[in-house]
Amino acid sequence: MYRTHTCGCLRACNVNQTVTLAGWVQKVRNLGAMTFIDLRDRYGITQIVVEEHSPAEARETVCRVGREWVIQVVGKVVERQSKNPKMPTGDIEVTAEKVAILHEAEVPPFTIEEVSDGGDDLRMKYRYLDLRRPPLQRNMILRHKMAQEIRRFLSDEGFLEIETPCLVGSTPEGARDFVVPSRMSPNQFYALPQSPQTLKQLLMVAGYDKYFQIVRCFRDEDLRADRQPEFTQIDCEMSFVEQEDVLEIFERWAKHMFRHVMGIELTEPLRRMPWIEAMEKYGSDKPDLRFGMEFAEITDLAKGHGFSVFDEAEYITGFAATGCAAYTRKQIDSLTEFVKRQQIGAKGLVWIRVAEDGVKSSIDKFYSPEEVRAMAERCGAVAGDMVFILCGKKFKTLTQLCALRLEVAQQLGLRDPQKFAPLWVVDFPLFEWDDETQRYYAVHHPFTSPKLEDVQYLDSDPGRVRANAYDFVCNGTEIGGGSIRIHDSKLQEKMFELLGFTPEEAQKRFGFLMNAFKYGAPPHGGLAFGFDRLCSLFGGSESIRDYIAFPKNNAGRDVMLDAPGYIDQTQLDELYLQLRKPEE
Amino acid sequence: MYRTHTCGCLRACNVNQTVTLAGWVQKVRNLGAMTFIDLRDRYGITQIVVEEHSPAEARETVCRVGREWVIQVVGKVVERQSKNPKMPTGDIEVTAEKVAILHEAEVPPFTIEEVSDGGDDLRMKYRYLDLRRPPLQRNMILRHKMAQEIRRFLSDEGFLEIETPCLVGSTPEGARDFVVPSRMSPNQFYALPQSPQTLKQLLMVAGYDKYFQIVRCFRDEDLRADRQPEFTQIDCEMSFVEQEDVLEIFERWAKHMFRHVMGIELTEPLRRMPWIEAMEKYGSDKPDLRFGMEFAEITDLAKGHGFSVFDEAEYITGFAATGCAAYTRKQIDSLTEFVKRQQIGAKGLVWIRVAEDGVKSSIDKFYSPEEVRAMAERCGAVAGDMVFILCGKKFKTLTQLCALRLEVAQQLGLRDPQKFAPLWVVDFPLFEWDDETQRYYAVHHPFTSPKLEDVQYLDSDPGRVRANAYDFVCNGTEIGGGSIRIHDSKLQEKMFELLGFTPEEAQKRFGFLMNAFKYGAPPHGGLAFGFDRLCSLFGGSESIRDYIAFPKNNAGRDVMLDAPGYIDQTQLDELYLQLRKPEE
Repeated sequence: MYRTHTCGCLRACNVNQTVTLAGWVQKVRNLGAMTFIDLRDRYGITQIVVEEHSPAEARETVCRVGREWVIQVVGKVVERQSKNPKMPTGDIEVTAEKVAILHEAEVPPFTIEEVSDGGDDLRMKYRYLDLRRPPLQRNMILRHKMAQEIRRFLSDEGFLEIETPCLVGSTPEGARDFVVPSRMSPNQFYALPQSPQTLKQLLMVAGYDKYFQIVRCFRDEDLRADRQPEFTQIDCEMSFVEQEDVLEIFERWAKHMFRHVMGIELTEPLRRMPWIEAMEKYGSDKPDLRFGMEFAEITDLAKGHGFSVFDEAEYITGFAATGCAAYTRKQIDSLTEFVKRQQIGAKGLVWIRVAEDGVKSSIDKFYSPEEVRAMAERCGAVAGDMVFILCGKKFKTLTQLCALRLEVAQQLGLRDPQKFAPLWVVDFPLFEWDDETQRYYAVHHPFTSPKLEDVQYLDSDPGRVRANAYDFVCNGTEIGGGSIRIHDSKLQEKMFELLGFTPEEAQKRFGFLMNAFKYGAPPHGGLAFGFDRLCSLFGGSESIRDYIAFPKNNAGRDVMLDAPGYIDQTQLDELYLQLRKPEE
Repeated sequence: MYRTHTCGCLRACNVNQTVTLAGWVQKVRNLGAMTFIDLRDRYGITQIVVEEHSPAEARETVCRVGREWVIQVVGKVVERQSKNPKMPTGDIEVTAEKVAILHEAEVPPFTIEEVSDGGDDLRMKYRYLDLRRPPLQRNMILRHKMAQEIRRFLSDEGFLEIETPCLVGSTPEGARDFVVPSRMSPNQFYALPQSPQTLKQLLMVAGYDKYFQIVRCFRDEDLRADRQPEFTQIDCEMSFVEQEDVLEIFERWAKHMFRHVMGIELTEPLRRMPWIEAMEKYGSDKPDLRFGMEFAEITDLAKGHGFSVFDEAEYITGFAATGCAAYTRKQIDSLTEFVKRQQIGAKGLVWIRVAEDGVKSSIDKFYSPEEVRAMAERCGAVAGDMVFILCGKKFKTLTQLCALRLEVAQQLGLRDPQKFAPLWVVDFPLFEWDDETQRYYAVHHPFTSPKLEDVQYLDSDPGRVRANAYDFVCNGTEIGGGSIRIHDSKLQEKMFELLGFTPEEAQKRFGFLMNAFKYGAPPHGGLAFGFDRLCSLFGGSESIRDYIAFPKNNAGRDVMLDAPGYIDQTQLDELYLQLRKPEE
């Protein structure tokens, strides 16, 4: 036994016990004849004292130890002279009788403290040292706890955790697959799953009724900030359900998670916001509801008064920035610059300053004070607010105003990571039109079912058809989403046709699922949550990387393992592969 | 809501309730004006009745339905005339008022019953239909339950579940890696992990103290029966522990699993058998202890009596086959054939028949009855037993006799899948000598530590050095194994040297782990269990495939998904790859 206690558990009641501790040296301080060591493990820090009267061997040993050495200490728990109320073990210290060095340590390349002095790249390279820091340890413990609570809830609700394979065929998700060359089937490749979408649907065909899995997924996409080539999904599917059933269970699940992980009681039913409302009020299908500042359309008020920017616009909308009336010209200019940088397509920023004694705006030339006031009032502005207005094509304008709303909220400190505003966004459109390729795409995936009452528009006006699809959104982030699937093969064929697949293509890409349906598919639906993202939401960080033990960098590399790397010619030969030199 | 109840939950107390059920049609029977339907879901089967007086629509609908159609039934629960005590729902039936067809079904390619009439290949192709059968559903439910109990125990013991990446660098495990070409790092490859061995050791360096993960692992090996290219491990590692600590926790874990999953109380401490004892008594490092028939060496008794086969042998050993004295010449011949087929190298089978009135053997020419009796007694034979003896090189003879012991036990029905005889095998040799390559190999892996008292033999007699390594064995199968790792860099260098790695090779293959150790590695150790194998042990089946939802066949193919498959030229180009035609 290397230890009798951890470094986090000794208290006043342990005084006079002889204990053995083991851990890493956080700090060594020599004060005259006394040496103090902060000994650290995952559970906490305990102060070790070597005094004048300590055995000579112990005194000699502690002279050698430095930061991050691994040592074992046998000693007696004593009450501290000067207690440290900030540390759980702050009432006691351990006077060392024996000190053994378990492992020496070189000086670490950065400080292993709450806040480190190491840069991102260095900390990624020495991830195992960065992982020693308390914030990352808290993150990993949080993730562990969340995983256990997720499974506990779903398991108690009758969901079965079923593992699906990692070596599969190419999936019809649309993103780029990672592939794995097969040695036994020359010139053929497995694909790593982008999600177990089709496999979980097959499990429903197989009668498993309620399935879940916390599962690794893979997408070989160019990495944007906070995307990882491999990520973890909480993947769920249910049979014999309608949208209401799915939302009901996963709303309870979300509340369970908030209660048991965060200690937060969400007593109200979650808001359900139709997609079009989310877009028109917040300019986003993942609105941040931690604060108000909703948009109001003012096209009718603003058009036709000779202000050409507005007159030429399809859509004019604005919001009242709470308490921002005192913004200086410089602040407004900086926001105007911010809006321009978005480059989404809306036209330059118009503002209305609302005071007790009247309004002042950047468009006073074109509108009477009453007209300006009417616009401000439509946006819900009160004295002290500043209204910001954008115009242009409807959805581009909304998206750009969304960015502005979030920027202003950030400046006002309204995006508080300790506050949570979850909601369901529902009634998504089934299709979205792509101007470039001149065709419709499935907003979710080709198996998403249309709302029964909208099926009539499938041919005449596909853009009008709403889907039985739903997203779980919190604080401006999409945490999860899903849909009720099509289980009628006629309707499925129609969908493929609308999405531009020939029957042959559809058969090739989705055939095995469609064939499975022929043997009796139950009505089914489900959803998937991004586990990394849910962790970062609960942990209050922007970055999912902080919640992944060994993440990749933005070039998709694990710099700690130095992977990917070159392989031997023998391996290439066995896989029937040759390399092609990339062009310079 | 598609249903108010499942097909497994209605009882006599529900009589007179109006319920809605949904599920698959297991069977349709027409008896005159009555139609009986067995409606099935994951939870059970409920009998549906459509009578003469049922609504015409319901009567018409049930005329159309066939096996495996998905239907929804609204009806009243009534007490059955003739109860079926074999079914949990056998006291009641549901008289249908409405029947709706949710999905038609083609006739399935095999019967979906407890025992199917479909062959292996067909059932693999239509795995989603095979998965509907009750035995596979029970297996998946067992696996789910086991996964939850594994996590519950380990989580309660303070282990943290930490996910490690799937896209890593080549691992030093020795088996062949699956590789994943990188698009962003041209001509480089990730490897899929054979196990998270080095990553979990890094987590110990990072101070996580107790780690576990139920994790997918990958090995691109030629598939033998019951091996899968991807499989699942229960992977664990602990810091500041010695072998005893690991065995203590995982013995409690094993007992927890037997108690909570199987309802079996293992009250005795698990037996701990040194490797050499397992080899000499059972001819295997994974002895089946469900029955006795231990081996006894009789070299001293048998040699030097003019029987050249024995006289020339290094080692002579035998066991008493319980109650087999009555075996016929034909049975003995068949066992002799069995022994020859093993082709391990031991010499032909010698037998001694032990009766109340004396012994009779195949070597009566060479030995006196007293000498034969002495051999039989050494093997623990009593009247009614038959002693089987083999000889040759020691370990080859033991291995071959092990095969015979298991074969005899199989014939005697002693390998009862309902009986469990778990044990720890300990004190493994650290190295094994390979005649072909004339060098030592690590029995476990290069990080396994030698026993302190044997370190002295590292140079002089490496074969004598025992490891701090242990296997968890049950019923003749290795379920798990692990070791206390080396955390002293000097000793680790020595190990690499003994294993024939140059310092450069060692640095290249294991460098990043060794470098990590320089920053303070705690003493640590752990183990991993084969989850698929543990499931098949608990489930009482020989095959791990029955416990994997979507397994691959022996050629490494998923015949349901038809994976692996060919990919587009575009994909190959993006990955800087060219295919090489396999030679015919």
